[in-house]
This record gives sequence, C-alpha cells and structure tokens, in this order.
Amino acid sequence: MPGVGPRSAERIALWMVQSRGDQPEEISRAISTTRETVRPCPQCGFFTMQELCEICADPTRAADQLCVVEQPTDILPLEKTSAFRGRYHSLGGRISPLDHIGPEDLRINELVARVQGGGFAEVILALAADVEGQATTNYVVELLKPLAVTITRIAHGLPVGGGLESADELTLYQALSARTKL
Amino acid sequence: MPGVGPRSAERIALWMVQSRGDQPEEISRAISTTRETVRPCPQCGFFTMQELCEICADPTRAADQLCVVEQPTDILPLEKTSAFRGRYHSLGGRISPLDHIGPEDLRINELVARVQGGGFAEVILALAADVEGQATTNYVVELLKPLAVTITRIAHGLPVGGGLESADELTLYQALSARTKL
Repeated sequence: MPGVGPRSAERIALWMVQSRGDQPEEISRAISTTRETVRPCPQCGFFTMQELCEICADPTRAADQLCVVEQPTDILPLEKTSAFRGRYHSLGGRISPLDHIGPEDLRINELVARVQGGGFAEVILALAADVEGQATTNYVVELLKPLAVTITRIAHGLPVGGGLESADELTLYQALSARTKL
Repeated sequence: MPGVGPRSAERIALWMVQSRGDQPEEISRAISTTRETVRPCPQCGFFTMQELCEICADPTRAADQLCVVEQPTDILPLEKTSAFRGRYHSLGGRISPLDHIGPEDLRINELVARVQGGGFAEVILALAADVEGQATTNYVVELLKPLAVTITRIAHGLPVGGGLESADELTLYQALSARTKL
C-alpha cells in the first residue's frame, strides 16, 4: 500500500494477528465493500456509489461549464477551492508516448461526444503545466475547436505566496508572457 | 555572512590565519572594492559600477516597457528568462505595515515620476504573489491609473512542471479565476 514501508507493514501484520477485537475483520469488510460499490462515474469518471456521481447528479451545479482534468483525484483539490461550480470530465491520464499512452487510451472521444451533445458554453482545460499536460491540452483543443464552445485553460504563472526569487525560469517566463491587464 | 554557520566560519578563520599566500588579502581587497564601486543605479535601483546600470544604459532595450520589481535581486531571475527586453524599476521592498515599511519608504514616487516623464506604453508589475506583494501592486496601480499607460501584472497560477495535486488551494483558485482563452 502507498506510504507503508516494510517496517510499518510488519507492525500492521503483527497487530492484525495479535488483535483480539473485530477491527481487522472490519477493515477487511470495508475494503471489500469499497471495491465492490465505488465505481467510476460513467459520465465524468469521478468516484461514485450511485448511477451517476454526486457532481453529475447535482442539479444546482452549472450545466454550461465543463472542467477537464487528468485524473478523478484532480477533482478533489479543485472542489476544495469552491471556485468552480460546473461539471467535470476526467480523461483518466494524459498523452505520454514514453509510457505508451496515446489519445485512444484516454476518455477523449467521450469528452468530444459530451461537448457535441451540447449545452456547454465553456470547456476549461485544467491539465498539468508540464510537457505532457501541455501536449494533451493541445490535442484536445484541436478536437474541440470546430465545436461552438469557448475553450479556456487555467492560468500558469507564479504560485500564490511565492516571490520572484523562488520561482523557476520557465514559470517566470510563463508568468511574464501571460501577464494580465489590470 | 549568509550561509556560513559557526563551523564554516571557524574553518574559514583558521584558513585565513594559517594561509601563506596572498588569497586572504585579495579577498579583503575585493570586498572593499565591491563596497566602494558597486552602487544602486539612480534610475532603476539595480546594481551598477557606472553612472547608470547596464540595463538602463543599453540602447537596444525597449524603452516603452517598464517592469516593476520589489528588490534589485528580482531583476536577475527575470533577465535569465530572456522574456523581457525592456527597462526595470526596483521599489526596494514592499508595503509591510508589520515591519513598519510604508509607501514613503519605497521608491514609489520615483516610479510615478518616471512614468509621468513619458515614453512608457506599458508598466508590468512583477511583485510577489503574496498578501504584501498584492497590497503593493494595488497601491501602485491606484497611483498609475490616471496616467496614460497600460498596466499589467505577471500571471499568477499553476507553476510550470506542476500537476494539480501538488498545487495549494489558493494557487488553484487563482489559476481557475484567471483562466485564459485558447
């Protein structure tokens, strides 16, 4: 399990064997239940226990904004900001030729079909600010361009709280190039 | 000296005393010479040994773009990006009431006078993306607004190379709010 090294694993194993209570059994059941009931939402790829996930099923959320992310786990930090109240679409990864991940391995066709289905005024691409995230962004933009929808990308630049001396060269370059009018 | 702890200091001191060559003397002379000859440029606040600094004196640099930074040391990382070929203005700090630094302690009047002097089409504010940097940015913007000049700010958002999961909440909020059209 991630974050559990050999020493922790040994300690957990011994605790499980020596424990007199029901806790190890309960953990085992919880794992099985989670594996059985939590599935990816067929519409957006987020986690769900129902037909659709909580976000897709929420009628109070804006239905005209779609935020595209790489992984379903990227939805959690975005939700924490409370800055976005639209819908999501997780691609399930990014284009990465070195890892043999091409566009056909991602949920890009589903994205195009969803946008073609209509109703979206804006598609926000919230992919990573590295080479592969950028390549995936460009690929998706090319596919969405012919559709009648505004395509935006989250801002790349100086992270909040940081000074110029702590920023790397590429970030500063990006921050200067994408400066905003006040 | 910054970065020199008690152990390093002791080692350096012993080396200076025991050294048979001229090196300690040379270092002493270099320090004195630097202290005597390197002064802040009267125009922009950067380091110089001449009347004006290299950047202010360079006729090949654009004279219609002015980049405002907090410290003269902020000019070095910006120069490394090669993204900016205009002039600079260092404020010598940022407004920070807790440290008893007000607008009158900074080179803000000099900035306004310089922009009033004319010739600048754009003033780019490249201050830190934290509370004090933001407050200083707002203060300067209020003063420059009446002048006929475009005011921009470097982009705040996701640092280059980073994914969504490594970004903090405020940065993600900023990145979402300041998203750019593609």
